Amino acid sequence: MFKKILIANRGEIALRIIRTCKEMGIKTVAVYSTADKESLHVRFADEAVCIGPPSSAQSYLNIPTLIAAAEITNADAIHPGYGFLSENAEFSRICQENNIKFIGASPEMINQMGDKASAKATMIKAGVPCIPGSVGLLDSLQDALKIAHKIKYPVILKATAGGGGRGMRVAHNDEELEKGWNDARTEAKAAFGNDGIYLEKFVVEPRHIEIQICGDQYGHVCHLSERDCSIQRRHQKLVEEAPSPFMTDELREKMGKAAIAGAAAINYEGVGTIEFLVDANRDFYFMEMNTRIQVEHPVTEEIINYDLIKEQIKVAAGIPISGNSYYPKMHAMECRINAEDPKNGFRPSPGKITVLHIPGGHGVRVDTHVYAGYTIPSNYDSMIAKLITVAQTREECIVKMKRALSEFVVEGVKTTIPFHLALMDNPDFKAGKFTTAFLETSFDFSTI
Amino acid sequence: MFKKILIANRGEIALRIIRTCKEMGIKTVAVYSTADKESLHVRFADEAVCIGPPSSAQSYLNIPTLIAAAEITNADAIHPGYGFLSENAEFSRICQENNIKFIGASPEMINQMGDKASAKATMIKAGVPCIPGSVGLLDSLQDALKIAHKIKYPVILKATAGGGGRGMRVAHNDEELEKGWNDARTEAKAAFGNDGIYLEKFVVEPRHIEIQICGDQYGHVCHLSERDCSIQRRHQKLVEEAPSPFMTDELREKMGKAAIAGAAAINYEGVGTIEFLVDANRDFYFMEMNTRIQVEHPVTEEIINYDLIKEQIKVAAGIPISGNSYYPKMHAMECRINAEDPKNGFRPSPGKITVLHIPGGHGVRVDTHVYAGYTIPSNYDSMIAKLITVAQTREECIVKMKRALSEFVVEGVKTTIPFHLALMDNPDFKAGKFTTAFLETSFDFSTI
Repeated sequence: MFKKILIANRGEIALRIIRTCKEMGIKTVAVYSTADKESLHVRFADEAVCIGPPSSAQSYLNIPTLIAAAEITNADAIHPGYGFLSENAEFSRICQENNIKFIGASPEMINQMGDKASAKATMIKAGVPCIPGSVGLLDSLQDALKIAHKIKYPVILKATAGGGGRGMRVAHNDEELEKGWNDARTEAKAAFGNDGIYLEKFVVEPRHIEIQICGDQYGHVCHLSERDCSIQRRHQKLVEEAPSPFMTDELREKMGKAAIAGAAAINYEGVGTIEFLVDANRDFYFMEMNTRIQVEHPVTEEIINYDLIKEQIKVAAGIPISGNSYYPKMHAMECRINAEDPKNGFRPSPGKITVLHIPGGHGVRVDTHVYAGYTIPSNYDSMIAKLITVAQTREECIVKMKRALSEFVVEGVKTTIPFHLALMDNPDFKAGKFTTAFLETSFDFSTI
Repeated sequence: MFKKILIANRGEIALRIIRTCKEMGIKTVAVYSTADKESLHVRFADEAVCIGPPSSAQSYLNIPTLIAAAEITNADAIHPGYGFLSENAEFSRICQENNIKFIGASPEMINQMGDKASAKATMIKAGVPCIPGSVGLLDSLQDALKIAHKIKYPVILKATAGGGGRGMRVAHNDEELEKGWNDARTEAKAAFGNDGIYLEKFVVEPRHIEIQICGDQYGHVCHLSERDCSIQRRHQKLVEEAPSPFMTDELREKMGKAAIAGAAAINYEGVGTIEFLVDANRDFYFMEMNTRIQVEHPVTEEIINYDLIKEQIKVAAGIPISGNSYYPKMHAMECRINAEDPKNGFRPSPGKITVLHIPGGHGVRVDTHVYAGYTIPSNYDSMIAKLITVAQTREECIVKMKRALSEFVVEGVKTTIPFHLALMDNPDFKAGKFTTAFLETSFDFSTI
């Protein structure tokens, strides 16, 4: 087992990883930018190394500095968390070259799944249902038009290097496709330095349902059931739950089998997530694979009583898994508590937390790095806590979430708590009737 | 179901009850002394009524004021929590007379179990194993000496109205018995206004193992397994866990059956606890019955996934229980975080909490009413939080507790956190080898 793990991340996920390391008896090294020197991940790690100024490029994305920090502190592994360098093939490769175990996917796996076109080609080959569309990247607008006519509108253009909704355009006719082609390429070039674009049939009002999988170094792959992440605003997840209220035992079997086949096709090692779109007929289509831990992993942990970070570390250390899949025993839900003003277009609201009360009690879990007196820097994402509730049924889980939200006190900054409280009272949400379009088309933001 | 419940208590248990009421859709009324006006139980209740000055006698124990508060706010039930008036037959009776449901035992049950001598007589009649000793109260020192010679020393003298270790004396010979007789009577008279004393065989180095039971208005009684509360200092519990590391399936069946028989003998309604002493041969003896919720109830909730306060309220509202007993599915432990200095004889340390970080993550539950900036009043007991961990095994549960304790930050006052950290590292504790005498005889307080 590893003796010391450097955590190449910040905020709640850095603290989350430190927690599991402590429970496993593994020493930890926190890294931090100067903007984060007061963060709890720095306080709770065994050692902490300042890696640069607030700018992510110069700190959390600075590969040479991170490698140097690991070497100076004698860390034998690096956990990248999510975001930042967690799906960076170069970083994975450099760790390998420096004999530091990267707790995540190999450079080859990251490349294969990170490039959306090659990921899709791999999945088709493994027999995983994919959305009809271009085979690989589009050569030209003419190419795009030809495929759109064949698979019928609406279609969606996607940047192969994209993420977070950038470099994506929906088209309902030739005119929109032409405009989208130009816009998506320009945006992708600017955001990712790569204007490769592919095209797919646009699935109308689908659900976003993802399968958590875990593979070891010996070819065993299992699934750990699904999460429903359909509650999104501009492709940003806000609420996740497990199991999905739309799931059936039959569909879970099918999707689990497909996810395992997809992961096995690339000999996947570690925990990962295969994201699917599920349409109203319960047909499902591969969307993308994330070769890292997800923000929403706690809902899976709660429904099956399983520490996913521990599993990641064990698998990275060469410990085999049983290979048996895991099925929901409870219902869990996660609300992302962001320092944003939901009454003002979710505008970020950085600043100092003056008063804080974190909810507690039976069935309530909070993952957070903040405390009263903590100043939220404006340099990073605005998530300040994850509030997770768990209960026997979805109904009880929502009731518990409402209760927990109602006693979550954060003063000094605006948060998404009022949004979540309104959502928990929404009849369609309570009935489990929602798609990824729910917030844009059905939710009344004046109820916040 | 009740429409509005008044909570005749303070601190974490008041907040705990408010949480369940919120989840059940029941309105709540908090009461508070002037010392508690900044407490979270006041903030999170739907209504709050100030009931008097800091002195408990003039506030939380003031029956006429509490009844008036319930009548003014139109509460149809009162939850007494633990301590204060929770086992006061007079209060239960007055609630009844005022058509306010007392969420607890009837005056008759409280009297029958509250008087230790009559409780013992009831249990003997129900076939529950009891410690040999006097039948009812002692008439005189001569009576005590006669019984001591018959059952053999060591023996213990106990005040029938006693609690918290007061009015108790152990005697190993005639001389000690004579001194103890005088001391125990004087102490009991002063503390409880009742100098009735009984005598029992003193069980040497026993375990304190209690069975949680629940009975409804229709004669169903079930047990919810045991809690081990042997880690005590001067008869004050500090750490509780479930299941007991000393338990066997066979012993649980026997103790569960005895507890159900005892509760059924008095037609017990509500949740309650039958406390037993268990000796090295796994023979067990009835100690006392608590006709209320216990401080340590969360460990039971965590191992069987069950809200005990909800059950209390449901049973009080006349909803029947299934009658099936519950068996441990997990291991849970609770550390009482008190504002006391464990390096200085556990001296109370009231004052203002300047910095606070409450641990979180998978398998960690915290029940607390405090926040950064809160001033702990010196008028009440010193418990400021209950830290509960839950895991598949006892070993993992201890590891998790250590991790959670290590990130529990309370600045401004001394707490019992360093004591708990030392205990979690104690080899005997880790091996499950301890009795109620453990802290006094085996634990090295210099390891704190």
